[in-house]
Amino acid sequence: MIIPSYQDVLDAHIRIKPYIHRTPVLTSTFFNELTGAELFFKCENFQKAGAFKVRGASNAVFGLSDEMAAKGVATHSSGNHALSLSYAAGRRGIPCHVVMPRTAPEAKKAAVRGYGGVITECEPSTSSREEVFAQVQAATGAEFVHPYNDHRVIAGQGTCSLELIDQVDDLDMVIAPIGGGGMISGTCLALSNAAPDVAIYAAEPEQADDAYRSFKAGYIIADDAPETVADGLKVPLKDLTWHFVSGHVTDILTASDPEIVAAMKLTWQRMKTVMEASSAVPLATILKNKDLFAGKRVGVIITGGNVDLDTLPWTR
Amino acid sequence: MIIPSYQDVLDAHIRIKPYIHRTPVLTSTFFNELTGAELFFKCENFQKAGAFKVRGASNAVFGLSDEMAAKGVATHSSGNHALSLSYAAGRRGIPCHVVMPRTAPEAKKAAVRGYGGVITECEPSTSSREEVFAQVQAATGAEFVHPYNDHRVIAGQGTCSLELIDQVDDLDMVIAPIGGGGMISGTCLALSNAAPDVAIYAAEPEQADDAYRSFKAGYIIADDAPETVADGLKVPLKDLTWHFVSGHVTDILTASDPEIVAAMKLTWQRMKTVMEASSAVPLATILKNKDLFAGKRVGVIITGGNVDLDTLPWTR
Repeated sequence: MIIPSYQDVLDAHIRIKPYIHRTPVLTSTFFNELTGAELFFKCENFQKAGAFKVRGASNAVFGLSDEMAAKGVATHSSGNHALSLSYAAGRRGIPCHVVMPRTAPEAKKAAVRGYGGVITECEPSTSSREEVFAQVQAATGAEFVHPYNDHRVIAGQGTCSLELIDQVDDLDMVIAPIGGGGMISGTCLALSNAAPDVAIYAAEPEQADDAYRSFKAGYIIADDAPETVADGLKVPLKDLTWHFVSGHVTDILTASDPEIVAAMKLTWQRMKTVMEASSAVPLATILKNKDLFAGKRVGVIITGGNVDLDTLPWTR
Repeated sequence: MIIPSYQDVLDAHIRIKPYIHRTPVLTSTFFNELTGAELFFKCENFQKAGAFKVRGASNAVFGLSDEMAAKGVATHSSGNHALSLSYAAGRRGIPCHVVMPRTAPEAKKAAVRGYGGVITECEPSTSSREEVFAQVQAATGAEFVHPYNDHRVIAGQGTCSLELIDQVDDLDMVIAPIGGGGMISGTCLALSNAAPDVAIYAAEPEQADDAYRSFKAGYIIADDAPETVADGLKVPLKDLTWHFVSGHVTDILTASDPEIVAAMKLTWQRMKTVMEASSAVPLATILKNKDLFAGKRVGVIITGGNVDLDTLPWTR
């Protein structure tokens, strides 16, 4: 296990700058009045490839030696990491192999192929995904870039919070969704060094609350195939992300699927931004824990905007 | 007929500044590559009350004497002007009476009431709307603020283009949707004075192409009750907007309803922004007239983002 350093985040920020957007921070009078907090939405849904994951993927791809890069990269992902690694590999001109659940949204599969990624499908469980991936990697010799349990990926995700604290002064808290813990780990790594007074909260779907239960238990609890509308957050913590989550997170809050969908729809209606269900989990938890956030300046990381517009959760 | 002057636009900009957003301009590599043009999207979907119409409405409301304001304001509108006038009247603390088609989206009716507007419903035709409105105005004595054929409203809408040319240098063209012609008239008024080399194009649904036919004929042609997915653009030109459209617009382009819906969905997918069908008409016309726009720097006015998320045109 290689634990990334704060210097790795600073290096990543320089390395990936040509390939990512410095995304805007939006505010909303409506949501400030609704929650009693001052919310600052860091909009990674406007990021290249539609999600923050392009930060970690670009850091991994552009950190490879020419010799390693020549064999390409490979990963398994429920969606946005696949898009992002395909995008980054495309920018470097190297192959990208992706193992993806056959049940992933068609919009995400099409987008991966649009960026030049080559997809091998697996069953929608963690065990099947890892099995099929081993076969693909053996056949290609490509460099494995794990979606989150990778020091290069975590250092890359940390750049999001570096930008956020440069864009917004005096934050009291930052909250982000937690699935495998890559974004939260990068947030912990960056903020515990650059802004150690900022409290870090993670937000998780009740129906995939393995991180919440792990955090309360003090050791990693992994579910094999949880079901939630927040389909980017089904994956379990791993040793490297557990290191950061257990060491730096103040608390993990959860929300039900109906609460997540309501927060998602409300954001589309009032902020006019397209965000994924996963990205609505922080707002859903803020709305049910108003006392915790009232009067605070809160950074809310909107992680992605890759949605299948034909199957919106409120029209299903 | 009172024709507003360029000075009226400059005055409006100062008058309404406390009540509106200076909206951002977004760019998209995807859409630039798709069209061959450099597109600059002026995002009035992020405006207060969700649409550019708050500019004209605020200018009218805050330009009233205290005596006139005391009786309130009144209007008829297919949606966004109603929202915007209700918002502006609420900020000044005066009543707002709105005549609205009973078929208008529920989301818009609820939002008007949310801003404190009082709705009287009419049939979905121009003739019924004008008849019911006369009754409401007679009963209340409120000041009529027409959705577009009003010198105060047109001067207010012109402030959008003042911002746009301040945000983006060296535009070759600006394109905006045309319904009654309020936004286009304000654009003509502002740009013919502040940036006379910028060509102004209007974009209209084929299924409500009265402005297109008027422009080609040389006189106003009005339809009573056209049907199009771009429900903000069903209303006809009037004398004041015809003055600007006939004098300053380079051309009017049209797109079919399926082309409009495709452009709308594509924008949601790739720019992650919620925009109305009406706002997608300019992009739809650019996509079918690529030669006209190729190599040009084009300002595209995204007029609003008030959408009923339960009845999206691609899920109906």
